[in-house]
Amino acid sequence: MGHQEVMTTYLANFIQQLVHGGIKHVVISPGSRSTPIAMLMVEHPELNVYIDIDERSAAFFALGMAKETREPVVLLCTSGTAAANYYPAVVEANISRVPLIVLTADRPHELRDVGAPQAINQIHLYGEHVKWFMEMPLPEDEEEVLNFVRQCGARAVATSAQVPAGPVHLNFPLREPLVPLLEPSPFEGLEDQHLFIDVIRGKLNISDSQVEQVVTQVEQKEKGLIICGPIDYPELNQHIVALSEKTGYPIIADPLSQLRSCGIFNPSIIDNYDSILKDQSFNQYFVPEVIIRFGAMPVSKPLTLLLKNAKNIIHYIIDGENGWRDPIKKGTTMVHSDEIAFCQKMDNQLKDRRQTKWTTMWQQLNEQTRSIVVNAMEMENALDEGKVVTELVKFLPEHSTIFVGNSMPIRDVDTFFHVNGRNIRILANRGANGIDGVVSSAIGASVNAENVYLLIGDLSFFHDFNGLLAAKMYQLNIRVILINNNGGGIFSFLPQAKEAKNFELLFGTPTNLSFEHGIAMYDGHYTKVHNWEQFRQAIADSTSSQGIQVIEVPTNRQKNVESHRKMWKKVSQEMNEYFRGEK
Amino acid sequence: MGHQEVMTTYLANFIQQLVHGGIKHVVISPGSRSTPIAMLMVEHPELNVYIDIDERSAAFFALGMAKETREPVVLLCTSGTAAANYYPAVVEANISRVPLIVLTADRPHELRDVGAPQAINQIHLYGEHVKWFMEMPLPEDEEEVLNFVRQCGARAVATSAQVPAGPVHLNFPLREPLVPLLEPSPFEGLEDQHLFIDVIRGKLNISDSQVEQVVTQVEQKEKGLIICGPIDYPELNQHIVALSEKTGYPIIADPLSQLRSCGIFNPSIIDNYDSILKDQSFNQYFVPEVIIRFGAMPVSKPLTLLLKNAKNIIHYIIDGENGWRDPIKKGTTMVHSDEIAFCQKMDNQLKDRRQTKWTTMWQQLNEQTRSIVVNAMEMENALDEGKVVTELVKFLPEHSTIFVGNSMPIRDVDTFFHVNGRNIRILANRGANGIDGVVSSAIGASVNAENVYLLIGDLSFFHDFNGLLAAKMYQLNIRVILINNNGGGIFSFLPQAKEAKNFELLFGTPTNLSFEHGIAMYDGHYTKVHNWEQFRQAIADSTSSQGIQVIEVPTNRQKNVESHRKMWKKVSQEMNEYFRGEK
Repeated sequence: MGHQEVMTTYLANFIQQLVHGGIKHVVISPGSRSTPIAMLMVEHPELNVYIDIDERSAAFFALGMAKETREPVVLLCTSGTAAANYYPAVVEANISRVPLIVLTADRPHELRDVGAPQAINQIHLYGEHVKWFMEMPLPEDEEEVLNFVRQCGARAVATSAQVPAGPVHLNFPLREPLVPLLEPSPFEGLEDQHLFIDVIRGKLNISDSQVEQVVTQVEQKEKGLIICGPIDYPELNQHIVALSEKTGYPIIADPLSQLRSCGIFNPSIIDNYDSILKDQSFNQYFVPEVIIRFGAMPVSKPLTLLLKNAKNIIHYIIDGENGWRDPIKKGTTMVHSDEIAFCQKMDNQLKDRRQTKWTTMWQQLNEQTRSIVVNAMEMENALDEGKVVTELVKFLPEHSTIFVGNSMPIRDVDTFFHVNGRNIRILANRGANGIDGVVSSAIGASVNAENVYLLIGDLSFFHDFNGLLAAKMYQLNIRVILINNNGGGIFSFLPQAKEAKNFELLFGTPTNLSFEHGIAMYDGHYTKVHNWEQFRQAIADSTSSQGIQVIEVPTNRQKNVESHRKMWKKVSQEMNEYFRGEK
Repeated sequence: MGHQEVMTTYLANFIQQLVHGGIKHVVISPGSRSTPIAMLMVEHPELNVYIDIDERSAAFFALGMAKETREPVVLLCTSGTAAANYYPAVVEANISRVPLIVLTADRPHELRDVGAPQAINQIHLYGEHVKWFMEMPLPEDEEEVLNFVRQCGARAVATSAQVPAGPVHLNFPLREPLVPLLEPSPFEGLEDQHLFIDVIRGKLNISDSQVEQVVTQVEQKEKGLIICGPIDYPELNQHIVALSEKTGYPIIADPLSQLRSCGIFNPSIIDNYDSILKDQSFNQYFVPEVIIRFGAMPVSKPLTLLLKNAKNIIHYIIDGENGWRDPIKKGTTMVHSDEIAFCQKMDNQLKDRRQTKWTTMWQQLNEQTRSIVVNAMEMENALDEGKVVTELVKFLPEHSTIFVGNSMPIRDVDTFFHVNGRNIRILANRGANGIDGVVSSAIGASVNAENVYLLIGDLSFFHDFNGLLAAKMYQLNIRVILINNNGGGIFSFLPQAKEAKNFELLFGTPTNLSFEHGIAMYDGHYTKVHNWEQFRQAIADSTSSQGIQVIEVPTNRQKNVESHRKMWKKVSQEMNEYFRGEK
């Protein structure tokens, strides 16, 4: 067989194995060395191919798609710095447990480290930030090699998806000429040969006797908290609520736990703990004896401080993905078990439901605090960043997805996104919490989800402005609520805000960009709103429109800090009254 | 001493050592963990601080500045994916030998790999793509630690600048609170304490006897070529020309050798070899017996093919930076010596000047080919990508800098940028030849150079569109000649262009972006030209204007291939005549 035929057979076997393993979506950034893989992928009838010029955006686009669908997505780029541009998304995928399969084309060995063009060292390019790296062999059509290539394809899909999910990287050395043979179709009849590999993946399960010790502790302690941080496991929700009812432990529900808008209404789903715990002088009333924690660490800093400063807490961390996520280092038992299996076993062994004074306190304070927050927002006439969240929730269609930017937006969602029955899914890149790649991730999520809204600040929007190209090229519907406070809002909440000197230069960093023009470059629709009436109308219009819809909400960083603090002061006063009454 | 005082002393010593080592420019991307370093850098009276939100652009901005000034530039960012965004520029700096000092702030050890926010594994984050990595100690004020910190500062500057120059990476774990003490000024009187370290760097030098063998070979062989690829060593130019005169060897001068516009006119500076060698059927006449090569491998593919296919060539590779740049693997002697020292020693030992038939042939064909190319361009009325280069050279001010994009622009410059007396410096990112980061690199070059022109295609311009922010924020003057062929022009020259199926989808990749709007976002000035008259006027206008000036030249990918091929056909015909006459 000639070079082209050998290369085609080799690559077709690999690609067919990916499809066999369930891969549906491929994001390709154009380049020369990756030509044969790209041409074959486009040729495959079951693959959806997306082209994205900027590899950094492409990788986050794939990440958003994988996050939304909970399935691995494939990335392909050419050799050189193209592959280095994937790095931020690879790092994020690794920490936030999102399955990505990164394929990089490479120069063959004889063109490496000898000054050849577009040749960089791609071996272990992503270091320890991928779950698995494989330097693929040069194309050959020996049976042993083809078996190996299929095995690598199967393993790439399985490893990326196996818990904890994450990115894998396969590097393909390819020699010129780089054009494959497309006639006869290299995929026709290939699947019928029963060459392809299936993978069956089990879950971590613990035994009844392993759960017994947890049950014993829980039954002895009335003051407990179930803490649900970011976790994407919809079937888990009802089991968490059942566990709460049996134990009498309130559920501290981070917005990314998906418990705040999952169709379950239960007074023990606590959504205002961030405001409740803001004034640390009341912490004594909230310190639990037992914690059962699911998911990653919640975003709330007051909650973190409560847990960090308290002593002698029995703290179970349940992680069905074998992880070790305990930044406060207070976990006392790490439970590596599928979360549902854990809840079910607990449920079987726990006695009747329990409602204690502790439960009641949390429920009451949560209700009261919510009223304060809601009232404060209703009274607010100015364009306030918190009110954007409360208004948004009212006017979105059911089953919408909100993709939330890092820095301020996720914190505002934590404070202002209350329990509701709208079945809104909240997504965010909370692995490394970067402001990069958020636009692309949201647009990636919009490929398979209807009604995706991106809530994002101006710096983060700017950082991944290139991400809009995918929405333009593939006519994706993305509604962007752009909170434009002309700079980095979060720094106004940090200690350096007190140092007026150079603050704007280093942290405020106003860019004075007129995004309206930038949106026009992408044929997007842009509206700047000046009051809440306009905001509501803009949300409604964007929902009924197609393509890129940007709603800019101009806000003021200084005023924003003040309005947040004013509200928290009210909560603090209320708490004071509550506990005076208690004593 | 308290935490803040200790941290301030530690960091001030490090920063002062950087300044002591000659650092003038720092590019900072805002973030929280890097706060104390950023605040202290802004406070230092001798540091110029630039803020750039997008770390990918920031790194290329620093690279452009370092490339233009030939001095190390410092980068600073916060922890997390911010640092991963530096990767493409770090890789490019490493291959293209540009000194960069990358400083990343990090979470302290107790917040690593435990699910803490914005904490990624930053140890050896850039793998083998940096020359030196150091995990810095936590701030302490022990004398031993302060000595070490100064040593690391000195070593960072020296290592980045030592041949071959490249990037270094220092990772700083920092604990909260992150605000340093600015009163009294931490830098006042610090330099007077004679604590800071100087580094004296020598050059690789070879002995007279080591050169003797080269001289002997050269004297025996009439047919030789001096090949100058990309190299940034202005003082070398006259020595290369002197070597050419003594040996009678023509100089194959890549545009990035800087020999085509260095104020030296010599008929042996061959600037049309790419066109001459295009038709390989004449290669027999051009195969040399000896090659003396300087710099990286030239961009010209026909030249590469000539050298690759020829046998029995004595091939010296002179590299004063200790490298191994030989993608064709035909080097027979690697000479690790400063290039000027080598030329001078050669000059001392070589006899009188030599002008042979071989020299004359190259000179004649170069002249004749240049006429064909120049005439073809003069006859061209349509907006042709090649003619952009010939026109540009005519109308730029003397001592301008052209920053050239990868893919097509650098190849067009190779073909159409002829020897001239305008002292134009040509810069490009030819380490990994990526289309990424080119806008930022050019803008970085414009910080210290007057009259910088960026010649770039639309995909590359799009890829680093964010790079324009630095020009806007720092009122830098950058003139962009945007060759807009709406997609990837280079692929039309590659074999896959013959496969019409999916070609536009995968390789043509038209984005249909209206850049005019995007430029308005950055308050830039935009002109689209439709003929050469308008082009000349736009160049003149842009030269006399400030800020971002974009001149869009709409071209057609298909027509461009045809006009290039038509011209090369003429060269081929002329060659045919020349060698018929010779026989």
